[in-house]
Amino acid sequence: ADERTSSSGADLTGEQLWQAIREEARRDSESEPALASFLYSTILAHPSLERALAFHIANKLCSSTLLSTQLYTLIADTFMEDADIRAAVRADLQAVKSRDPACVGYSHCLLNFKGFLACQSHRVAHRLWNQGRIALAFALHSRVSEVFHVDFHPAAKVGHGVLFDHATGVVVGETAEIGNNVSILHHVTLGGTGSSGGIRHPRVGDGVLIGAGATVLGPVRIGQGAKIGAGSVVLSDVPAHCTAVGNPAKLLGGNRPIQLN
Amino acid sequence: ADERTSSSGADLTGEQLWQAIREEARRDSESEPALASFLYSTILAHPSLERALAFHIANKLCSSTLLSTQLYTLIADTFMEDADIRAAVRADLQAVKSRDPACVGYSHCLLNFKGFLACQSHRVAHRLWNQGRIALAFALHSRVSEVFHVDFHPAAKVGHGVLFDHATGVVVGETAEIGNNVSILHHVTLGGTGSSGGIRHPRVGDGVLIGAGATVLGPVRIGQGAKIGAGSVVLSDVPAHCTAVGNPAKLLGGNRPIQLN
Amino acid sequence: ADERTSSSGADLTGEQLWQAIREEARRDSESEPALASFLYSTILAHPSLERALAFHIANKLCSSTLLSTQLYTLIADTFMEDADIRAAVRADLQAVKSRDPACVGYSHCLLNFKGFLACQSHRVAHRLWNQGRIALAFALHSRVSEVFHVDFHPAAKVGHGVLFDHATGVVVGETAEIGNNVSILHHVTLGGTGSSGGIRHPRVGDGVLIGAGATVLGPVRIGQGAKIGAGSVVLSDVPAHCTAVGNPAKLLGGNRPIQLN
Repeated sequence: ADERTSSSGADLTGEQLWQAIREEARRDSESEPALASFLYSTILAHPSLERALAFHIANKLCSSTLLSTQLYTLIADTFMEDADIRAAVRADLQAVKSRDPACVGYSHCLLNFKGFLACQSHRVAHRLWNQGRIALAFALHSRVSEVFHVDFHPAAKVGHGVLFDHATGVVVGETAEIGNNVSILHHVTLGGTGSSGGIRHPRVGDGVLIGAGATVLGPVRIGQGAKIGAGSVVLSDVPAHCTAVGNPAKLLGGNRPIQLN
Repeated sequence: ADERTSSSGADLTGEQLWQAIREEARRDSESEPALASFLYSTILAHPSLERALAFHIANKLCSSTLLSTQLYTLIADTFMEDADIRAAVRADLQAVKSRDPACVGYSHCLLNFKGFLACQSHRVAHRLWNQGRIALAFALHSRVSEVFHVDFHPAAKVGHGVLFDHATGVVVGETAEIGNNVSILHHVTLGGTGSSGGIRHPRVGDGVLIGAGATVLGPVRIGQGAKIGAGSVVLSDVPAHCTAVGNPAKLLGGNRPIQLN
Repeated sequence: ADERTSSSGADLTGEQLWQAIREEARRDSESEPALASFLYSTILAHPSLERALAFHIANKLCSSTLLSTQLYTLIADTFMEDADIRAAVRADLQAVKSRDPACVGYSHCLLNFKGFLACQSHRVAHRLWNQGRIALAFALHSRVSEVFHVDFHPAAKVGHGVLFDHATGVVVGETAEIGNNVSILHHVTLGGTGSSGGIRHPRVGDGVLIGAGATVLGPVRIGQGAKIGAGSVVLSDVPAHCTAVGNPAKLLGGNRPIQLN
């Protein structure tokens, strides 16, 4: 099988991933002429994944007072200058493709998944925040919250290979940290408890899965590989590889590694 | 009383329903000149309910890369070709009017209820999906999720006379099925549990009521006339005419028919 | 310290508050040229807080069928005619600034907080409702629900100094009443239980705090200074200064005044 269209993207290089996306766009453009100009302007017209993504996000987030050209330049420059963000974008695309059974292709995620688009927009806002460009970081944050219904504080730290599935209503607070290969469903809150100094939001370890509607509050640690059940309210630490469910959440048992793939 | 403005729409024909909507628009247009051009362009300028609805949805879902004219043609053609969707649109309008005490008229629902507009947009995406037009179905799905904050997988099956009240954050998975005369509040999830083959989402019987924030996960059956309480987490079958509440949900009792009207 | 840029806004007059906002906008405009034209058009070009806010909301809520100029006139006129709304706007700005640790300035809230913008839009819709301009109130309500993901029925009563933090998915029903100095997190529902006459939604007393994802249903009273925990489902009265948590919610204890600041 042609590696560029292989169903497992785990070992695609950046260039192979971009060629796979272009191949999908060409195929869809031929089979669905109604989308040809959409796919041309969002994917096929661009020289790289980063420029296509910057164009697409800028078009989503622009408004009558924040121009798309201005946003495009800002986002594309950020991607060009920051190799870590470029690697995170690719890891996130591959995470969605491999972990979400409803994802039918890389271009499907790139164009249509608001959780993915919100997360990449957040990476740009987070870099602005770290550069002290607070007002611009918040302007971007505000548009992400309005357009994608995901509210990442610009200071929140997010790892690589993260899946925000469905994503509506996700809230991630200022001092929250999300590790690598984490999967977070819609309506999940990583929030504070009202204290106002230092770390006041959760730290989520690598490989954690947080179900729909779960609320995790305060400076708690969710250990590596832990699972949080849908609708749970978590107010204390969850050890690695454990599962917490209920309101308030209780541990189901330990030592159960999760299988996200 | 004039049948066209009668408060009970249960027995209006399609043409009577459309005339009632036009009558409401004319009345509002006279009493509120600030809305006259809005009501003219969305309702009074159109020859039928289907064309008015297609125009209104196309204007809501269009973007700089998906033109409103293109969406209008696609949606209007779908309505013209599919009598089942036309019947579902009318049944949904009448369901909202009769079951939602906050609904003051058919035109109020047609113009303003994002749950209604998202559901009719989904009917178009679902037909595209069944025709194998996957990429276009997902493009429409993505815009519905962004604009109305409702995430129906295009493959999900939805019956007639369905009320999505408030609707923010509703998620309905790929293999979910929703029967006739179902009422679903905001933040409801009909989701999966991570398995990836065959039926992996809930099947919801006729006449079911699902309260705000309820999460129903996995290939479970919610029997005819059952009620799911607000905030419940349901991981197993709920028998017909029973009520399930809590996290995890427990049955309150059987044999209690629900009164939606 | 210059009173206009003081961190505590509790005793700023309306004019001092507006000058503090302009000062922030000038400072951000100088340090971030990419935002200069945005800050000029949204704040610095306007003669008053009310006109700036009316311009900003009108730009957010306008559509191809509801023109921004028309909305601007409607909102600005409402602010000019109603001193109570003007006082509420200022009290809400000061509430967000003093109670939300993530709020870095008045202009940050004015420009970027969708909970604040939704609440002020609701105040306009509520006045239209009270004037019998039902169709226009609902048209505004619908746009607020689409753009800010907050669904306030136009008839709902909201006090002064209210903080809607994050705000995604908040639903407030027709006969609900929210007192002064209340703080409400995202995904909170003040909903009905299906009955259709008289008062059918909660009344929330002064100084109440309602955590993320809490669902309060029916004509219950939440007493002054009470706290509702995240994810709680509240179906009965909560006495003043008590804390209710869980699904269904139980009281944790009485006589505990809350500290919002």
